[in-house]
Amino acid sequence: MISVGVELGERRYDVRIGTFDNPLGADAAADILVAALGPSTTGVALLVDGDLAKRSPRVDPLVAAIARRVPRVARRDLPAGEASKTMDEIASTNEWLASEGFDRRAAVVGIGGGATTDHAGFAAAIYLRGVAFAAFPTTLLAMVDASVGGKTGVDLRAGKNLVGAFHQPKAVIADLAFLETLPGRERIAGLAEIIKCGFIADAAMLTEIEAWPRGASEAPYAAERYLSLIAGAVRVKAEVVAEDEHEGGRRAILNFGHTVGHAVEAASGYDLLHGEAVSLGMIAALSFGAARGITPPALVDRARRVLTSVGLPIDVERRLDASVLARVSVDKKRRGGKIRFVFVPAPGETRLEDVTADELKAHFLSSSGGAKTIGSSA
Amino acid sequence: MISVGVELGERRYDVRIGTFDNPLGADAAADILVAALGPSTTGVALLVDGDLAKRSPRVDPLVAAIARRVPRVARRDLPAGEASKTMDEIASTNEWLASEGFDRRAAVVGIGGGATTDHAGFAAAIYLRGVAFAAFPTTLLAMVDASVGGKTGVDLRAGKNLVGAFHQPKAVIADLAFLETLPGRERIAGLAEIIKCGFIADAAMLTEIEAWPRGASEAPYAAERYLSLIAGAVRVKAEVVAEDEHEGGRRAILNFGHTVGHAVEAASGYDLLHGEAVSLGMIAALSFGAARGITPPALVDRARRVLTSVGLPIDVERRLDASVLARVSVDKKRRGGKIRFVFVPAPGETRLEDVTADELKAHFLSSSGGAKTIGSSA
Repeated sequence: MISVGVELGERRYDVRIGTFDNPLGADAAADILVAALGPSTTGVALLVDGDLAKRSPRVDPLVAAIARRVPRVARRDLPAGEASKTMDEIASTNEWLASEGFDRRAAVVGIGGGATTDHAGFAAAIYLRGVAFAAFPTTLLAMVDASVGGKTGVDLRAGKNLVGAFHQPKAVIADLAFLETLPGRERIAGLAEIIKCGFIADAAMLTEIEAWPRGASEAPYAAERYLSLIAGAVRVKAEVVAEDEHEGGRRAILNFGHTVGHAVEAASGYDLLHGEAVSLGMIAALSFGAARGITPPALVDRARRVLTSVGLPIDVERRLDASVLARVSVDKKRRGGKIRFVFVPAPGETRLEDVTADELKAHFLSSSGGAKTIGSSA
Repeated sequence: MISVGVELGERRYDVRIGTFDNPLGADAAADILVAALGPSTTGVALLVDGDLAKRSPRVDPLVAAIARRVPRVARRDLPAGEASKTMDEIASTNEWLASEGFDRRAAVVGIGGGATTDHAGFAAAIYLRGVAFAAFPTTLLAMVDASVGGKTGVDLRAGKNLVGAFHQPKAVIADLAFLETLPGRERIAGLAEIIKCGFIADAAMLTEIEAWPRGASEAPYAAERYLSLIAGAVRVKAEVVAEDEHEGGRRAILNFGHTVGHAVEAASGYDLLHGEAVSLGMIAALSFGAARGITPPALVDRARRVLTSVGLPIDVERRLDASVLARVSVDKKRRGGKIRFVFVPAPGETRLEDVTADELKAHFLSSSGGAKTIGSSA
C-alpha cells in the first residue's frame, strides 16, 4: 500500500492506495477509515453509486465492515454517475441525513466514481453547515482526480460543477481491486489524467506508460501496472493543491488540457468521457503551444503517440468549430476577460499565459479548416 | 453612523449602522458596499425580499445607487420571509446567477430580513464554490442577529437551518431607516435578541431598555432609541464570534434562550416570531437556572419585567408539555447525548452546563403542571 499525504495544515489527510483483497481487505479498509474519522464519530452515512452496487461484489462487504466499527451506519444508493450531481439529489440526500438523525459528529462517506464522491462531499459540506467526509473512489479517474483537492459540487442546467464547496476529506481510500470490474473504456479514460500529470509535473510517468507493452491498456486489469502511476498522479496533484488550496495560483496548471477539453466534452453532449475530452484538449493545448513557439513540435508528436498507444482519442481538429470555441469563451467570461491557458514547454514543465478568444479562434479555426493537421510537426 | 468590526483575520469585516436618508443616503450606502467589495468586482447580484420590495420605498433607490457604481447589476426578488429558505429556492437562485453569467468575481448582496440574508449568503457560499457576499439587513432581528457570525443556510422538512455554510460577508450595512416601515410586532420581536445580549454580556443594555418610557416599544419608530442598542448587540455578537468562528466553544453562549425557544417556536408552527420564542426561552432558562441555584430569583423577576415592558411574551409554562420538550431532545441528539444549556448567574455573565433530557423534563413538567409559576420568585 502507498500512502500520499495531502498537506493542508489542520485539514491534512492521507490518500491510501492499494489492493484490499476480500474478505480481510474490507476490514483493513474500514480500519483506515475509522482511524481517520476519529473515535468521536457518532455514525457513518454511506452514499453508494447505484450502478457500482449492482456491479461490484466488493460494496456489501465494505459496508458491513464499516458497520462493525461505528455506532451506526445508514446507506443510500445514489443514481449512477452524473445523474446524482443535481441540486435535487443533494436536497434528497440532506433530507435523508436529517431523517436518519445524523448529528454534527457524523461522517458522510462516498463509495463510487467522481460523481458519487462529488455529491457526497458537497452533501457533507452543507449538512448542518459541514460534517466530516471521506471517500472510496472506485474508478481510475476518481482515484487520481476527484480524490485530491477538496472540490465538491453538482451541476446546474447552465453547466457542470457550477455549484459546490471546497471541503477536504478526512481520508481517501483507493482500493485498486475496484478497477477489476471497471469497464475498459473508463479505465482508459482515467489514464488521460495520469498522462496529464506526466506532462505538467513528472516526465517519468510518461516514460513509464511509454514502456508498457503494446495493448496493455486493453488487456485485463493488472494491479502492478497501475499502482505506481496512480500514486504518482496523486502525488503531483497533492503537491500542487498543498501550495494553492483554493485555486488562486499554481493550481491552474491542473487545467492543462481542460480549457478546450471541457468545451469538446460539453459539445459532445457528454458522449465523450471526461478523460477522452482531456486527451483531445491536451493535443489542442500542445499544438497551440507549438504554434506560439512554446512547445517543441516533437513533444506534440510524443503526446500523439503515447495517447494513441493507450487507446485515447487525439482527433481534436474535427471537433473544433466556431460553436465549440464559443463555449471556451463562456468559460472565459467566468474569469473576467481572458483565458488563462496552460502550455507545456517541456515534459514536466508548465507556462501560464493569458490568451484572448480571438487568438484561440485564429489558431484553431484556421488550422482545422485547412490542410494542416493539428499536432503534426511535418 | 457606528461601525463595528468583526475581527476574523483575513475574513474581517465591518458592520455599519446608521440612518441613510434618501436620496443621498442610498448613494452613501452604495459607496460603503462598493468600497468593501473592492475594485475587481465584476457584478452584483441583488436578492431582495419580495415583501420588502413592495412595502419599502427605499429598495429601488438603493438598487439604482448600486447599479451606478458597478459594471453590472441584476436583481431577483425572493419569496417573502421563510419561503425563500428552501433548497429549491437556492437551486433557482443559482440557476439564475449562472444564466446571468455572473463570474467568480461577482458578489451576491441580500436586501431583507434574516431569511433573505441567510438565503443570499448560502447561495453565495456555493455558487462557483463561493463568491463574495454582502448584506443590507432590513429588520431589527436581522440587524442584530443574522448580520454577524457568517451562518447562512436554509431549512429542510426535518427542521430549520439544517443545511448551510459558514460564509462571512464582506460588509453589512444596517440602514435604520428601513425600521420605519417594519411592522411593530417584528420590531418588538427584534428586541428579544438585544435583551439577550444584555443578559449574557452587557448589563448596561438592560439598564438602557429599562429606562425607556412606558409604551416606547409600541410608539412610532425613533432612530435615537435604537442606534446604540443595535450597535451594542452587534458588538457583543462580534466579540463572541471573533473568539469562536465555527461554534466550538464560547459561541454557545449566544444560544441563551434558544434551546427551549426553538422548541416552542417549532411547536407553534412558527406562529411565534423567533424573537417572541427567544423571550419565552430566556424565561425558561432563567427559571431553570433558579431551580438549580445558579440564577438569583430576583434576576428572573427582572427579566419578566423588562420583557413585559417592551411587549414580549413570558408565559412559557403554558407552552411546555412533553411533546415540546421532546423537540428539545431532538436538538440534543444532534450534539450527541446531552444538552448544553446556557445559564445566567448574574446580568452579563454566563455559565454553560450539560443537562440531560430527564433533568429538563423533571423541572419543566413538574413546575408547569403544578401551582408554581415559572419565573416567579414568590
